[in-house]
Amino acid sequence: MTNHATSVAVLGASGYTGAELLRLLLDHPHVRITALCGERSAGARIDEVFPHLSGRMDQVVEAIDHAAIAERAEVVFLALPHGHAAAQVKALRAIRGDLCIVDLSADFRLRDIAVYREWYGEHPCAELLPQSVYGLPELGREPIRKAQLIASPGCYPTASLLPIVPLIRAKLVRPRPIIVDAKSGVSGAGRSPSLAAHLPEAGEGIRPYKVAGGHRHTPEIEQELVRHAGEPVPVLFTPHLVPMSRGILACVYAKASDPSRPASDYLDCLRDAYRDEPFITVLADRLPDTAHVRGSNRAHLTVRFDARSGRVLAMSAIDNLVKGAAGQAIQCMNLARGFEETAGLAAAPFFP
Amino acid sequence: MTNHATSVAVLGASGYTGAELLRLLLDHPHVRITALCGERSAGARIDEVFPHLSGRMDQVVEAIDHAAIAERAEVVFLALPHGHAAAQVKALRAIRGDLCIVDLSADFRLRDIAVYREWYGEHPCAELLPQSVYGLPELGREPIRKAQLIASPGCYPTASLLPIVPLIRAKLVRPRPIIVDAKSGVSGAGRSPSLAAHLPEAGEGIRPYKVAGGHRHTPEIEQELVRHAGEPVPVLFTPHLVPMSRGILACVYAKASDPSRPASDYLDCLRDAYRDEPFITVLADRLPDTAHVRGSNRAHLTVRFDARSGRVLAMSAIDNLVKGAAGQAIQCMNLARGFEETAGLAAAPFFP
Amino acid sequence: MTNHATSVAVLGASGYTGAELLRLLLDHPHVRITALCGERSAGARIDEVFPHLSGRMDQVVEAIDHAAIAERAEVVFLALPHGHAAAQVKALRAIRGDLCIVDLSADFRLRDIAVYREWYGEHPCAELLPQSVYGLPELGREPIRKAQLIASPGCYPTASLLPIVPLIRAKLVRPRPIIVDAKSGVSGAGRSPSLAAHLPEAGEGIRPYKVAGGHRHTPEIEQELVRHAGEPVPVLFTPHLVPMSRGILACVYAKASDPSRPASDYLDCLRDAYRDEPFITVLADRLPDTAHVRGSNRAHLTVRFDARSGRVLAMSAIDNLVKGAAGQAIQCMNLARGFEETAGLAAAPFFP
Amino acid sequence: MTNHATSVAVLGASGYTGAELLRLLLDHPHVRITALCGERSAGARIDEVFPHLSGRMDQVVEAIDHAAIAERAEVVFLALPHGHAAAQVKALRAIRGDLCIVDLSADFRLRDIAVYREWYGEHPCAELLPQSVYGLPELGREPIRKAQLIASPGCYPTASLLPIVPLIRAKLVRPRPIIVDAKSGVSGAGRSPSLAAHLPEAGEGIRPYKVAGGHRHTPEIEQELVRHAGEPVPVLFTPHLVPMSRGILACVYAKASDPSRPASDYLDCLRDAYRDEPFITVLADRLPDTAHVRGSNRAHLTVRFDARSGRVLAMSAIDNLVKGAAGQAIQCMNLARGFEETAGLAAAPFFP
Repeated sequence: MTNHATSVAVLGASGYTGAELLRLLLDHPHVRITALCGERSAGARIDEVFPHLSGRMDQVVEAIDHAAIAERAEVVFLALPHGHAAAQVKALRAIRGDLCIVDLSADFRLRDIAVYREWYGEHPCAELLPQSVYGLPELGREPIRKAQLIASPGCYPTASLLPIVPLIRAKLVRPRPIIVDAKSGVSGAGRSPSLAAHLPEAGEGIRPYKVAGGHRHTPEIEQELVRHAGEPVPVLFTPHLVPMSRGILACVYAKASDPSRPASDYLDCLRDAYRDEPFITVLADRLPDTAHVRGSNRAHLTVRFDARSGRVLAMSAIDNLVKGAAGQAIQCMNLARGFEETAGLAAAPFFP
Repeated sequence: MTNHATSVAVLGASGYTGAELLRLLLDHPHVRITALCGERSAGARIDEVFPHLSGRMDQVVEAIDHAAIAERAEVVFLALPHGHAAAQVKALRAIRGDLCIVDLSADFRLRDIAVYREWYGEHPCAELLPQSVYGLPELGREPIRKAQLIASPGCYPTASLLPIVPLIRAKLVRPRPIIVDAKSGVSGAGRSPSLAAHLPEAGEGIRPYKVAGGHRHTPEIEQELVRHAGEPVPVLFTPHLVPMSRGILACVYAKASDPSRPASDYLDCLRDAYRDEPFITVLADRLPDTAHVRGSNRAHLTVRFDARSGRVLAMSAIDNLVKGAAGQAIQCMNLARGFEETAGLAAAPFFP
Repeated sequence: MTNHATSVAVLGASGYTGAELLRLLLDHPHVRITALCGERSAGARIDEVFPHLSGRMDQVVEAIDHAAIAERAEVVFLALPHGHAAAQVKALRAIRGDLCIVDLSADFRLRDIAVYREWYGEHPCAELLPQSVYGLPELGREPIRKAQLIASPGCYPTASLLPIVPLIRAKLVRPRPIIVDAKSGVSGAGRSPSLAAHLPEAGEGIRPYKVAGGHRHTPEIEQELVRHAGEPVPVLFTPHLVPMSRGILACVYAKASDPSRPASDYLDCLRDAYRDEPFITVLADRLPDTAHVRGSNRAHLTVRFDARSGRVLAMSAIDNLVKGAAGQAIQCMNLARGFEETAGLAAAPFFP
Repeated sequence: MTNHATSVAVLGASGYTGAELLRLLLDHPHVRITALCGERSAGARIDEVFPHLSGRMDQVVEAIDHAAIAERAEVVFLALPHGHAAAQVKALRAIRGDLCIVDLSADFRLRDIAVYREWYGEHPCAELLPQSVYGLPELGREPIRKAQLIASPGCYPTASLLPIVPLIRAKLVRPRPIIVDAKSGVSGAGRSPSLAAHLPEAGEGIRPYKVAGGHRHTPEIEQELVRHAGEPVPVLFTPHLVPMSRGILACVYAKASDPSRPASDYLDCLRDAYRDEPFITVLADRLPDTAHVRGSNRAHLTVRFDARSGRVLAMSAIDNLVKGAAGQAIQCMNLARGFEETAGLAAAPFFP
């Protein structure tokens, strides 16, 4: 850590994404955490809120004070609920126009304000939407480098897009429709206790939820697919809750454009697309397993052609709280601040 | 229990399916267990092999002796590996032609001997294949009533077929192709320790395996779908291992024949098809959860229409060891022996 | 089921203990459920509150109406919070003096009203306390046969007392003090969502709670030990939450009275004490495992002598919701109503 | 990483401890891994053996070649079975006397060769035993700084000793006997599949094993306690398997020397003992939870006095693979090589 460390603020320190930002930022070589805010836990020491941080942090979580944050931080991470996040962006921007903001909520992900309204309600500051950049570096790195307002993608969209976009771009599959059958650990539901995440209810069963167009990540996946496909892409999205804490596995089904093509073409396409990516492993003989990426910013991808149905099955495994949230947000900050992209994110997954 | 109780033998008492047969048969009102055989555990007391049976059973597991079994049992359940099971059927039939045999292996499920050979190798007694009946009562009860050789279906085929077959029969969906994304508890892999079922490897992750035509349940699902569809049905089958012991959740995707049809038609179709079924619940407002059927012979089904993709999503949850194996086998025996169909199988699921 | 079936009411149908009472009572040969009450879920169908009961029950849960209950039921099970339970007993007794009541709360377990007050607060109807009988049949069956108000024991006391009381009675150990290190599944904390039972917090860790005299089951264990020891028995009780839904494992440590005694004496003592008990297995070569009693009313017990320390280690495994709650309550009802003791409770555990 | 990085070899790269050494050493600022050996996986790429290392390591695991190792490495970590480890030490020492060796097996932990023989069999090179130093820095740091053969402690001894030794040293408790009731995640059993770690058997239950003097960590705990107590300390040690991958929770029971002492004295004693320790948190109001130390080298400790029994309960939570194995070994190397003690070990735990 040098004197020139970038000062960062984390807003939303009471939730799992906030805690994961802290875990990763603590060992980031170029930043120091100068503000720690959260509504629910304001006034409490962070190691009381999250005892696993004992010995590393003992700051008191503060209520959100925009002026103080704008003064103390060059980069602000927002790990807040949608709607609430956009309101903070508006307030912070009003005080300091050049603040670098990485928003982990849905507020600046959807380009079309009507789509946002349909899924989330009225947007608190639609006027800032044009400034924002979708922060999935592997599918568009350059805009992030210049961005000052980054919309860090959802966990499901990250897992869904990474294995299929190269195949769509290369026109190896026909994207009408794309079926995404995705399975998530329960931490994705957040830290507020609920029956859905109550261990006796959720610990020994698997179940789908918000199927058939019911999940808010559906339009986000569609938006990004359309951008890469150049044509409308209806998405059938089926999320599931799996009896584990972390991880998302996505199976993406699409019709092969040319069933006579050799099966190896699909794998070659993924490999070519991600050859130089520091966080992506394209598996050849092996299938993705969320246990192999836990705690890391890595994505394990692969693809198979199913000859009997003429369909392609593209698969991914990520950690929903890292590559699906906190890690990706830091990766975006690294790009935006000119750090090496892997700074603070190189640690190997945690296994077993 | 009366003096007229039917005598039953369980072959393959060392495995999970065998143990589950014992658990259920112990409380069956019309049977008594008169023979208990297993190669691996021959000579051991069953409550040493399976300590959960302490206090209920203390028989010694015997090596398989066909003559003794044929003499002591009217019904034989085979919970043995494929190939091995068929050899027992052949030997038992040679001694006693009228023995009622319920085979839980794959040996008598596939009607086409060439398909069997492709997936399992040479069939040990193809000559008995024509006698066998596929034992999924909800999709064909009458033949089972007269059968003396019942091929009890696989766990994945049961979960996959139940929610989609009525929609195919009613021509509400076009079965070219059908995509099945299924998720199974680890008990499906059997009791032999393996890295794939080693708790530190499997306990906190989810992963697909044998995808894209690699799993032997694929041709079984296809065979039964074809029978109900009256046309070829290619199946893309994707099984997963979930960090839990029991349960299968299947999501079955198919194209709607007429996207303008009201969404309620699909649910009505399932409800009509299964109105009088004692083991099936068609859920209306709720989605299936394997935690809600554990330990029971019940299947929870539902279906949704996804307007954006024009696809239908049919879902099911079963217990892989009960409705997917031992329970279904007993349900078939009940039919074949003229017992009430629910005898020994009425117990509510075990929750939480 | 005959016309002479005993009518039973279950009060507190919204919780896990209530649900487990229903699961077991549904298959009890001598009873029928005639009333189903719960405050939280009044007005809802029971299969909406607990979807695993779909296909077996569809009654609507009613608000508690004492007159109606007293009229419709001969036996009432109370699966309610302490304090609340006693109030119902008082009201029901006022209407119908001969009602058989099995209370699963703590309200009638402690004989000493001062002790109750210290741990639970003011007792709502201490005047009924003298009528109540502690319902742990294996440690005192006769009083239960004549009881009309049965205090069904806590899950921890059941697991703690069963393996050590025979050794204390036989004076093989010196009970000053007794150390109980007990480990429970999370269902013991009830169905109300809390951070302590939130899957991401509780699913991959173990932790003690309410140690060193902080848990309300401490005085209950002490009371019963004193009764059998005939002298004061201080208990050091350490409960833990284990990342699983069901089960309690108790390790009970005590000083051997005579360290020169052969180790087999302890095991013989347990065996002799429980020789004819239908629900108890005393293990010889094996150690208890909660996985081997899940879903059943069985207790697996054993004991070892540790020569280096001169201490005895007595161990037990039970299902906290069955032998530790609903099953034991039904066992008590069976005794009180003159049914065979195992009626409705004989089913083998659910494994794996 | 500088040119002056210390070269290290890891022997035993096929197991969980080996993998954890690699995960941590990869981000250690002062070392580089120059040799990677394992018998079982020799010839395979390490990211095939452990797919979670994909993208970070792609070396091929080599068979053990003592000359090559001695030439390429300044420090050697042995993550091998007992007996086998000592044989490697002998061979390596013969080639290069000044090699720094950190042995994670039991081979050099027991000072008394007769005790070793009783528990493990004949010692392959007892002549090196006098050179070895027990590597638990918080209980004896200075000898480690000068050591060239370090016996890294077992996971259970680490968890057992840390919370109780300061109380014994301060004579706050009487150590005759000490009772340790410890609970471990299943990764402690290693990577070889077994029924004991088979998910369907172990995933939803808790059980003790090797109780009453049956576990090999018993003499190791006793040896270290005696050293600090200055008198014989019989230990009753009860290990358990918990349905989770990582973590050990130890509850240590001892008689208070003076029951009239204020309860706060015990906590003060722990706090004083560990005031400057970088990896230890003494909790005041909170109890240890293995979920709060996962993946880290931290230990969470606390202690309570139980007035009713006059006993003290000291508790600890560690990660069995880090502070209980790989992390502690690296901490020892840091001391022996003169690095800052926390080098490569500072990362916060992984939660949730």
